[in-house]
Amino acid sequence: MKKIKIGSVGLGRLGLQHAENIATRVMNVELTALCDLNKNLLNETADRLGVEHRCNSFEEMIALEELDAICIVSPSGLHTAQISAALAAGKHVFSEKPLGVTVEECKEAEKAVESHPDKVFMLGFMRRFDPSYMYAHQKVASGEIGKPILFRSYSQDPEKFIDGAIAFAGHSGGQFLDMAVHDIDLARWFLNSEPESVTAMGGCYAHPEFGEFKDGDNVSCLMKFKNDAMVFLFAGRTAPHGYNVETEIIGTKGILRIASVPQKNLVEILDHSGVRKECSENFLERFESSYVNELQEFVDCILEERKPSVTVYDGTRVSEIAYKCKESFESGTQLRF
Amino acid sequence: MKKIKIGSVGLGRLGLQHAENIATRVMNVELTALCDLNKNLLNETADRLGVEHRCNSFEEMIALEELDAICIVSPSGLHTAQISAALAAGKHVFSEKPLGVTVEECKEAEKAVESHPDKVFMLGFMRRFDPSYMYAHQKVASGEIGKPILFRSYSQDPEKFIDGAIAFAGHSGGQFLDMAVHDIDLARWFLNSEPESVTAMGGCYAHPEFGEFKDGDNVSCLMKFKNDAMVFLFAGRTAPHGYNVETEIIGTKGILRIASVPQKNLVEILDHSGVRKECSENFLERFESSYVNELQEFVDCILEERKPSVTVYDGTRVSEIAYKCKESFESGTQLRF
Amino acid sequence: MKKIKIGSVGLGRLGLQHAENIATRVMNVELTALCDLNKNLLNETADRLGVEHRCNSFEEMIALEELDAICIVSPSGLHTAQISAALAAGKHVFSEKPLGVTVEECKEAEKAVESHPDKVFMLGFMRRFDPSYMYAHQKVASGEIGKPILFRSYSQDPEKFIDGAIAFAGHSGGQFLDMAVHDIDLARWFLNSEPESVTAMGGCYAHPEFGEFKDGDNVSCLMKFKNDAMVFLFAGRTAPHGYNVETEIIGTKGILRIASVPQKNLVEILDHSGVRKECSENFLERFESSYVNELQEFVDCILEERKPSVTVYDGTRVSEIAYKCKESFESGTQLRF
Amino acid sequence: MKKIKIGSVGLGRLGLQHAENIATRVMNVELTALCDLNKNLLNETADRLGVEHRCNSFEEMIALEELDAICIVSPSGLHTAQISAALAAGKHVFSEKPLGVTVEECKEAEKAVESHPDKVFMLGFMRRFDPSYMYAHQKVASGEIGKPILFRSYSQDPEKFIDGAIAFAGHSGGQFLDMAVHDIDLARWFLNSEPESVTAMGGCYAHPEFGEFKDGDNVSCLMKFKNDAMVFLFAGRTAPHGYNVETEIIGTKGILRIASVPQKNLVEILDHSGVRKECSENFLERFESSYVNELQEFVDCILEERKPSVTVYDGTRVSEIAYKCKESFESGTQLRF
Repeated sequence: MKKIKIGSVGLGRLGLQHAENIATRVMNVELTALCDLNKNLLNETADRLGVEHRCNSFEEMIALEELDAICIVSPSGLHTAQISAALAAGKHVFSEKPLGVTVEECKEAEKAVESHPDKVFMLGFMRRFDPSYMYAHQKVASGEIGKPILFRSYSQDPEKFIDGAIAFAGHSGGQFLDMAVHDIDLARWFLNSEPESVTAMGGCYAHPEFGEFKDGDNVSCLMKFKNDAMVFLFAGRTAPHGYNVETEIIGTKGILRIASVPQKNLVEILDHSGVRKECSENFLERFESSYVNELQEFVDCILEERKPSVTVYDGTRVSEIAYKCKESFESGTQLRF
Repeated sequence: MKKIKIGSVGLGRLGLQHAENIATRVMNVELTALCDLNKNLLNETADRLGVEHRCNSFEEMIALEELDAICIVSPSGLHTAQISAALAAGKHVFSEKPLGVTVEECKEAEKAVESHPDKVFMLGFMRRFDPSYMYAHQKVASGEIGKPILFRSYSQDPEKFIDGAIAFAGHSGGQFLDMAVHDIDLARWFLNSEPESVTAMGGCYAHPEFGEFKDGDNVSCLMKFKNDAMVFLFAGRTAPHGYNVETEIIGTKGILRIASVPQKNLVEILDHSGVRKECSENFLERFESSYVNELQEFVDCILEERKPSVTVYDGTRVSEIAYKCKESFESGTQLRF
Repeated sequence: MKKIKIGSVGLGRLGLQHAENIATRVMNVELTALCDLNKNLLNETADRLGVEHRCNSFEEMIALEELDAICIVSPSGLHTAQISAALAAGKHVFSEKPLGVTVEECKEAEKAVESHPDKVFMLGFMRRFDPSYMYAHQKVASGEIGKPILFRSYSQDPEKFIDGAIAFAGHSGGQFLDMAVHDIDLARWFLNSEPESVTAMGGCYAHPEFGEFKDGDNVSCLMKFKNDAMVFLFAGRTAPHGYNVETEIIGTKGILRIASVPQKNLVEILDHSGVRKECSENFLERFESSYVNELQEFVDCILEERKPSVTVYDGTRVSEIAYKCKESFESGTQLRF
Repeated sequence: MKKIKIGSVGLGRLGLQHAENIATRVMNVELTALCDLNKNLLNETADRLGVEHRCNSFEEMIALEELDAICIVSPSGLHTAQISAALAAGKHVFSEKPLGVTVEECKEAEKAVESHPDKVFMLGFMRRFDPSYMYAHQKVASGEIGKPILFRSYSQDPEKFIDGAIAFAGHSGGQFLDMAVHDIDLARWFLNSEPESVTAMGGCYAHPEFGEFKDGDNVSCLMKFKNDAMVFLFAGRTAPHGYNVETEIIGTKGILRIASVPQKNLVEILDHSGVRKECSENFLERFESSYVNELQEFVDCILEERKPSVTVYDGTRVSEIAYKCKESFESGTQLRF
C-alpha cells in the first residue's frame, strides 16, 4: 500500500508527540520532513526518528515535491497563513486547533480550503478520536439515551502547570479560546446543534495574574442550544488532582459520563489516604491514543479519497462561539448568537 | 431527662416518616398527637405508633396544653398560617420547607418567629443533616479545599414518579421552588454567600404537560455569588437510574463530590450489564438518617435552649432566590439580585 | 406496646455502644440495668443514659426481677457461664460472640439454651444485620446469581490499632477465632452449607509479637464446602487504609461484591493524591446500623414470641470451624472436617 | 534504523492479532512471512497486511534466509518443536505460552535456548507488558507497599465463550495450565519468589462437560511462597460480566488492586439498571496494548542485543507449578513443591 509522506512543522510538546506518532504509530505514512526554528531540537528529533529533510523555514518544507501532506503544530498565530500556503503548494493539511486566532482568520482559512476541494483538510479536535468519547457518541447518536437534556463538560489543567499558563496568558486568547474550545466542539458534535444564547462568568480565584488579560483562572458558561439542550461548560487552571477532562450527557432515557474519574490507569491504591486512583498528568497522557487515531483518520482520508468528519467550518464555528463566551465573560451579561 | 412532647400534622409520605421517626428513632421525645384529615389513616397510624391524641383539626392539636412542639408536614399552602398559629399557641415549631408559597408569606412567617424569640423554630432543610453533606461542609468550612470556585448541585427525581409530578405540577410552584430550593440552600450554606445574578433555562424534554404551568421537566441555572463563586444547579424529573442528589464543590486546593454515584448500598453487582451499583429509589431512602438527625437537632435545641443553625431567614432567602430563578426561566433572560 | 426491660453487662467499647443503642435507638425496649466492674464508668454511663440499676456483679443484675432480658458484652471467657446463669434466672439472652472460648464451652451453652426453650437466645453476628449484607443475602437466596462457586471474605483491622491487638494477642484465641469467625458465619449463612476441608496459613509479616502465641498478623484459609463451593477467607491486622470488611460471592449467573471499597461515607475527594474515598475507621463506624438492627431483632423476637435466625448451634459450629482453621494454620497441613 | 524481519506462524485469533501488530503497530519491524495451513486465510491476511512470503509449512518459513525472527502462535502441542527448529535455523524466537505441553518438553526448549546463547528468546506472558501491571510492579518492587502478604489473582473468561472452551477442553490441559499460568507467572514476578505448597480445588458448577477431562469450569488454589507470602488464584469460565483479569497485592504498608473493575473504557452509564460500567469482552480487548508492547520488547532486545526479562526458565517453572496445581486439584490434597 502506498505510504503518505508527511512533513510536520513545530516541535513543541505536542509537535514532538505528533512527529513521533507519524514516525512510529500511524500506519501507511512516513515522516519525511520536519521544520522548526530550533536547529538542535530539529536535528536531534530528525535523527532519532530517522527523518530525511530538516527544514529551517515552512516555505522550504512545503516546497518539497515529494511531500503529500503537512502537519501544522506551530504557534496558533501562524496557523491560518500556513494552512493557506500548504494548500496552495498542493498539500493535504492537518492543523492543530485553532483554525485562526480571529474569526476573520478562520474565514480566510475556510476560503483556502474551499479553493482546494481535492485536498484533505482536517483540524485537530482530538477528543472526537478518543475511544471513550467515540463509544459515547455512538450511543447518543443511536438514540440510546433519548433526547439530550444537559451536556456538561469540564476541562481542567493541573495547578502544577500554572506558571506556564500564566506566562502564556497574554497569547492564549483566554480560557474560552484556549481550553473551552474542545468542550464547545464536543457539545456541537454530541448535540448536532448550535447555541442560541450564552451566559459566561468566572474569576481569578487563585491567580490574579490572569486578570491583567481580562481573563480568569477558572471560568464557566451556560448555553441554550437550538435543539433546546442546555450546555454547561467549565474550564480551569487549578485542578489539584491532575488533568481532568470529563463530560456528562443527560438524556431522557439514559445518562452517560465520560472519564468522571480521570484515572491514570487501572491501578487502585489503598493506603493511609483511603482508596484512591491516581490521575492523568496532562493531555498527552490522557489523549495518547486520540492523537494517533486522528492522524490515522487524516491519512486514511487521503488514501481513501474521502473527507474527514471534522471540517474547516467546525473550526470557524467553535472560534465564533468561544469569542461570544469571552465577550459574555468580559461584559458580565447574557448574549444571543 | 425530660421528654419533649410533639404533635405532628400531615400524614403524607414524608409526614408518616416524620411521625415514625419521632415515635421511634429520635431521642428524648414523645409523639403525643397526630393530625390529619384522613381519619382512617390517622387512627391506623396513631394505633401503630402508640399516639395518644388524634386530632381532626390543626386548631384542636395546638390547643393541647401538654404539647411542647409542633411538627408541620402539611401541604405547602398551609405552612405559614400553621407556623404562626403554633407559635402563637406557645409551641416550638419544626416545619417542612417551604416557609411559605410566596415571599410575602415567608415575611409573615419571619414576623411570627420574631414575635416569639423564646421559641425554637426550625425549617426542614434535611440535606444539611446528611452525614456525607455534614462531613463535606466541615472540610469546606475548615478551608481544606481552599477558596470555592464552582458549586454544582443536581436534584433528580426518578422518571418512574413522573405521573405524580405531573398531577402535582400546578401546585408545586415549579422545579425551582419545588426541587432546586434544596440545592439553593446548600449553595448558600457551603459558600456562606448570596447570589448576585442568575441565568435560568430548561424545557419539557420528555413531558410537555409541564409546559401548561410555564414549567419544564428539567431545568438549570447558573448564578454568580457575591464571594465570586460560580453556582450551577440542575433539577430534573426524568432520571432513568433513581433518585439522584449530588453536589460538587471545586476549590482552589481540593474538590469534593458528594454522592456522585447515588448508590443504594454497598453492594456491587457484576452481571450481563457490566459492573453496576443500584441506586436510591427516593428521598426517603437516600435521606433516611437526615430526617432523623434534623428532628434530633430540633429536640436538642429545645432541651438545650439554643437556636438551630437553619433560621427562618434561610427559608425566606431560599424562596426569594427560587422565585428569581423561576422569573429568569420564564423570561429567558439573565437577572440581577 | 409493652417495653422489654434489658440489663447489659460490660462497658468496653462495644458494650458502651450496645448500651447506647438499647437506651436510645432500639424500639420497644428500656435499658433498665447496667453492670461493670469499673464503678466510675458504670455510674457515668448510667447517669448519661438514665439507667435505674447499677450492678457491681452479674449475679446482682440477673436477680433483678423486672428485667426481661440480658445483653452480654463481657470478656469472652465469661460468656458461657453468664449465658447459663441468665437463662437459669429466667431471662432472654443476647450474647456477643463467641459463645464460648472452647468447643466444650459452646456445647455447654447449647445445653443451657436447650433447657430453656421458652427463652429467646441470640448470638451477636452483627454482619447478618448490615443492610448491604442483607440485600446481598436476599439476592443469593433467591437464586439471582445462580449456584455459588466462590465465597471470598476479608476482615482487616487498621494497622493503627496494632498495639491493642498485640496486647490482647494472648487472650484473643488468634486471628481465626477472633476475626475470621464473622467470615465463617457469613460463609455458612450465604452458602447454607458446611465445610469439608481446610488449608490455613499465614505469618507475622510486620509484627513478630504474634508469633509468641503461635498466631500471625495476617492469615488466610481455603475451604471446600459440602455444596462444592470454594471459600477463601483472609484476616489481617495491618490494613493501611482503615477497617475493611468485604465479601465477594461468585455465582454461575452473577457476582456480588459487598463493600469492596470500605468507604466512610458518600464523599469523594479530589486532591494531590488523586481521586479518593476515605475509609471506615473501625467496626463501630462500619456496622453502626447492624448493631442497632440485631438488638431490634432480638427485642422483636421476644415481643413476637419467635426465635432468631441466628441460633446457638451457629455459635458452636463457627467455633469448631475456627478451631480447625487454627489447627491447620499451626500444623501447616490441610485438614478434613 | 535497521528493521527486523519477522515471520509468524499461526493465524488463529491471537495469531491474527500478532500479525497485525507486527505489520502495523510495532516499530522497527517488518512482517515478512506468514505461515498457516488454511491457505485462504493465509493469502487474505498476507494481502491485507502486505506480507511477501506465504508459507504452507513451518520448515519452509524458517528456511527463508532474510528472516531475523520467528513469532510462534501455533497450537500449543507444536511450540517446543518449532522453538527448537527456529533457533536451529538461526532465528530469534518469540513464542506464545506455553513453552511445552509437558515439563519434559519445557526442559527440551530450555536446552534449545541454551544452545543458542546469541539468540533472543522470549515467551508471551503479555500481562507483564500491560501498563497497569507494569505500574503496579514498579510500586511493589520499589517497596512502596512494604512486604507482600497476600497476592490474589483472578482469570475469568466470559460465559458466552463457553462452547469454545468445552470443545477445546480435551486439548487445553485444564484450567490451571490453560488459564492460571498467567496468574502463576504474575505471582512469581511480583513476589520474586517460588511456591512451597499448594492446595487446589474446584468443580463443574455450570458445565459438567469439563468433568470428562478431570477438569472444572471454575478452580482455585492457595499457595504458600518461600518468602512467606500467601497466593490465592482463581480461574473460571463462567463470568457473567465479561473478561475479568484482576489482581490484588496486599502489603504491610499498602495495597494495590489492578483492574478490579474490568471496564471496557471510561464511559459510565446511568440507566434503569443503576450506575454501571461495561466490561472488556475478551483478552484481545483487555490486553490490546500489552500484545504490542511485548513484541516491541522482543524487537528492541534483538536490536539492542540484550535479553528479555521473561526467560525460558519462567516458562518451565510456570508449567511445573501449574502441573502441581492440577495434581492437587485431581487428588484433592495439599502438595509440597
